[in-house]
Amino acid sequence: MKIDAPRKYVTDNLKYALDPGSIAVVGASRYPNKVGSKVIEGLQKWGYDGKIYPVNPRADKVAGLKAYPTVMDIPDDVDLVFIALPAHLVKMVLEETVKKKAKMVVIATSAFKEIGRGDMQNNLTQFCRDNELPMVGPNLVGMGSPYLNFNCGFIPYLPVEGPVAMISQSGANLLAALGASQKDHYGMSFFVGLGNKADVDFSEFIVYAKDDPNTGCIATYIEGLDSPEAYIEACREVVPKKPVVAIKVGGSKIGVKAAFAHTASENEGTNDATYDEIFDKAGVIRATTWQEYLDTSLALGLQPPLRDDNVVMITNGGGSGLLSCDHFERCGMPMRELKEISPLLSERIRAFMPMFGSPLNPVDISGTATPKQYKGAITQAICDPNVSAVYGSICPTAVTDVDAVTDIYIDIYNQYKHLGKPLIMEAQGGQECERAIMRLRDAGIPAYPTAEQAVNAIVALRKYGKILDRFEKEAAGDTAAETAAEEV
Amino acid sequence: MKIDAPRKYVTDNLKYALDPGSIAVVGASRYPNKVGSKVIEGLQKWGYDGKIYPVNPRADKVAGLKAYPTVMDIPDDVDLVFIALPAHLVKMVLEETVKKKAKMVVIATSAFKEIGRGDMQNNLTQFCRDNELPMVGPNLVGMGSPYLNFNCGFIPYLPVEGPVAMISQSGANLLAALGASQKDHYGMSFFVGLGNKADVDFSEFIVYAKDDPNTGCIATYIEGLDSPEAYIEACREVVPKKPVVAIKVGGSKIGVKAAFAHTASENEGTNDATYDEIFDKAGVIRATTWQEYLDTSLALGLQPPLRDDNVVMITNGGGSGLLSCDHFERCGMPMRELKEISPLLSERIRAFMPMFGSPLNPVDISGTATPKQYKGAITQAICDPNVSAVYGSICPTAVTDVDAVTDIYIDIYNQYKHLGKPLIMEAQGGQECERAIMRLRDAGIPAYPTAEQAVNAIVALRKYGKILDRFEKEAAGDTAAETAAEEV
Repeated sequence: MKIDAPRKYVTDNLKYALDPGSIAVVGASRYPNKVGSKVIEGLQKWGYDGKIYPVNPRADKVAGLKAYPTVMDIPDDVDLVFIALPAHLVKMVLEETVKKKAKMVVIATSAFKEIGRGDMQNNLTQFCRDNELPMVGPNLVGMGSPYLNFNCGFIPYLPVEGPVAMISQSGANLLAALGASQKDHYGMSFFVGLGNKADVDFSEFIVYAKDDPNTGCIATYIEGLDSPEAYIEACREVVPKKPVVAIKVGGSKIGVKAAFAHTASENEGTNDATYDEIFDKAGVIRATTWQEYLDTSLALGLQPPLRDDNVVMITNGGGSGLLSCDHFERCGMPMRELKEISPLLSERIRAFMPMFGSPLNPVDISGTATPKQYKGAITQAICDPNVSAVYGSICPTAVTDVDAVTDIYIDIYNQYKHLGKPLIMEAQGGQECERAIMRLRDAGIPAYPTAEQAVNAIVALRKYGKILDRFEKEAAGDTAAETAAEEV
Repeated sequence: MKIDAPRKYVTDNLKYALDPGSIAVVGASRYPNKVGSKVIEGLQKWGYDGKIYPVNPRADKVAGLKAYPTVMDIPDDVDLVFIALPAHLVKMVLEETVKKKAKMVVIATSAFKEIGRGDMQNNLTQFCRDNELPMVGPNLVGMGSPYLNFNCGFIPYLPVEGPVAMISQSGANLLAALGASQKDHYGMSFFVGLGNKADVDFSEFIVYAKDDPNTGCIATYIEGLDSPEAYIEACREVVPKKPVVAIKVGGSKIGVKAAFAHTASENEGTNDATYDEIFDKAGVIRATTWQEYLDTSLALGLQPPLRDDNVVMITNGGGSGLLSCDHFERCGMPMRELKEISPLLSERIRAFMPMFGSPLNPVDISGTATPKQYKGAITQAICDPNVSAVYGSICPTAVTDVDAVTDIYIDIYNQYKHLGKPLIMEAQGGQECERAIMRLRDAGIPAYPTAEQAVNAIVALRKYGKILDRFEKEAAGDTAAETAAEEV
C-alpha cells in the first residue's frame, strides 16, 4: 500500500528486523521438511545469539526449544514476530503481536494479493498501520546479515561479509545473490526479501541502510514500486553518502502479468521509460541484467566514484583490451588514448613492455609480461596525476604467473588506496583466474571474469560520479537561490 | 593477405595443423621459461603421440629429445613446422620448410605487420603461397584438440571435450575460452589461434570444421576480415550442416587502432553495420559480448535449432521467470502465454504446483516445488506437441533438492531427446548450482548461471532456425529458378 514518504516509526524499528534481541516464530513446525521448521534451523545453524520462541499450539518443543501455544504465552518481551502460517490465520497472530507490543512483524506466508486476495492483504496492512506495527511482507523468503550471524527465513546460506545491502522483492533472486556471494565472494552487509511489500517499503530500508556501518552500496531488485515518490525521496537522501543500484523487472508485456502473479506488483500503465525517469530523479544507477546488477553493486560498494573519463587499462592480452574498448564505447564512455590523458605516461610505460606491446590505451604489455613489467606499468599509471582510475587485466598465457601478478595488484592497491582512484580488475581464464578474482575481491578490489563485466563496473562508478556532480550543483543552486531570496 | 575463396590445397592440408604425425619445433629453447620450450613441454604433457623434432643449432638435446641444427637435418618426413624464432630469422626457416616438403607451417613469432612491418609479413606470405605451403599466423598462440590430446603452442591447458570449434585471432581470448572450458565445462572439439592470419584464413578452417566429426558449432573471434567474400562463401557452405557464431571486435574508435596494434587487423572504413551485413549474408549468428559468444556457441553445439517461438519455461522462482521474460522481449522474441501455445497444457500443469504457483509462462511451480512436481511439469511440457522447446530453471530455496531436480532433468532429456526439442537450463545460486550446471553440460544440456544467459542461448537457437528456413527457401527458389530457366 502506498506511502507518501519513508515513515519514522518504521525506519526507527527496522533494526528489530535485522538485529532483533528476540524472535517468536509462529508456525514453527515439528517436521524438519516443513518450511516453518527451516526458520528455526537457520537461526540456530548460523549462530543467532538472541532468544528464539517457537509458537505452535500442538507441540511442547520444537528444534529442542520450549514451544508456546500463542505469542501471548511467551513470558518475555518479543522484538520480532515471524509468521509462517496459512494466510487465513495471519490476522489472529497480528492481533496478538500488537497486544504483545512486539516491535516488528514479518509475514512469510504466500497466497495473498498475488493470487487475487488484495482486500485480505490490504486489511492486514491497514491493521498494522493503525497500530504502528511495521510489517515486512507478506510472501517473502527472509532476511539476515553475515556480520550478525543472522539468517532468518527459508534461506540455505549466509553471504560473505561485504559492502552491498540487498533489498529484493524476489525471494529466488535474493537467494541467487546469496549463492553468488558464497561462490564468487560477492560481499553483502545485510539482505532482506520484501515480497509483496504491503507495508514496509523499499524507501524505508534504504533510509535504514544509510547509517548501517557495514553498507557501502544499496542494491534494490524491484518488480513494481507502489510509492515511487517515497523511493525517490529516500534515495535522494542517501545517494550523496552511498550509491543506490536498481534492477526493475516486469516491464515486458508478459512480465506485467508475471510480476503480478509473483509479488502482486502492479505495472499496468508503466513502462521502462517510466522507471528510467524515476531512477534518474532518484539518482539511482539502473542495471539491465542480473549479472550487471551484481557486478555494478559490488564495484560501487568497494570503490570510490569516478569523477572523469581518464581510465587507463593495463593488460597482457590485446583481445581483452579490444573487448573492453568496444564495450566502453557501446556504454557511451569511449576510452581516451593514453597520449591524450597524459603525454608523458605513454613514453614512461614503454619501458615495461616488449617492442610488440602497444602503449595506446588499452596498454598492451603483451602476453610475455612478467610480474615486474606489470608492477612498473601499473605503478606508473596509478601515480600519474592525470589518471583517474586504473583498469587491470590478467590473461593467463603459458608464461603468466597469475598468482604473482595478483599479489602485485593487491600490494599496489594497498599502497596507493589513499589517492582515491578506483582500481577495477578483469581476470579471464580458468581456475587460476577464479582464485585471483576471489583474492582480489577479498582485498577490496572489484574483479570480474570477463572484460565487459569489468567495463560495466567502471561505467557504473562513472555514473555515480556524475550523479554526485549533479546533486552538488543542484544543492549549490538551491543555496544560491535561497541566498538570493534572502537578499531580496 | 586477401584470398578470393577457400583454397583447396589449404583445406586439404589443415589436418596437418590439427593432427600432424610429426612436428618440428624451430626455436625450441633449452631454457624452461622461454616460450620456445613451452611448446614441446605442452606437446609432451598433454600426451601428443606423434614425433617431435626440436630444432636448435646450439643444443644437442631439448626436453630430453635429440635436437637438430636445422629443419633439413631432420632424418624423417615432417608434417608440421612450428616456428618460434625472432622475426628476421623466419624467412630462412620457411625456405627450409619448403625444401623439406613439410605439409604446414605455423609462425608463432610476433612483431610483424602489427608493429608496422607489413611488407616483411607480405613477403613471407607470398613466398608460402608461391610454394603452396599453407601458413598459419604469424603472431599466434597455438592450436590443439582435447580429442587428440594435442596441445601445440603456449597454452597452459586443454579444454574439455565438446562440440565447439574455436577459431580465434586473439591468443589471450582463446586462452580465456580454454580456461572457461575447464572451469565451466564449455566443451570444445578443436581450437586454433590465427593471429595476423597472413595466409590461412578463417574461411579455410571453417570449411575444415564442416567434416570434423567432433564439431557441432564453429565459433569465430574476429578482429578484422581480410577476405569477407571467402568468409561468406565458407559459411554458406557449412551453415546448412553446422551453425557458425561470430564475435567481431575493433569496431570502436579506439578499437580500430588497438586491433591493428594487436593482430594487424584493418578496420578503417568498416563499422559494426558492415559486419552485420557480412554476418547476415553468411548466415552467421553474431554475439555482442564475450560471455554471449561462449554461451550461444555452446547451446548451438549441443542442441538442435529452434523452429518457432513456442518455448515453455518451468521455474521454481518467479524472479528468474521475470528476468527471463523481460530479456526475451528485449531480444525481440517475446514469450507467448501458455494458453496461446497449448490451451490444455495450462490446465494439466496446474496439477504440479501449489495454489500460489502460476501457470502463465514462465510457469512458476513455486519455491516449494518438489522433484516430483518438477518431473510432472517438465514431462507435460516436453511431451506437448505444441511445445517446441523447454527452458528449465532451478532456484535453490531452503527446501529445493537441487541434485534430485538435476537428475530429473537429465533423465527426461535422455528419454525425450528423440523428439528433437531443445532443452536449455538455468541454475542460479551457489556451489550446488555450479555443480548442477557442470552435470547438465556433461549430459549435453546447455546450462547457465543467470536467466539472461539462458535466454541468449535460446534466442541463438531460434536465430539458427530462422537462418536454416531462409537458406532452405533460397535453395528452393534457386531450384525453381533453374527449373524455370530449363523450361524456357
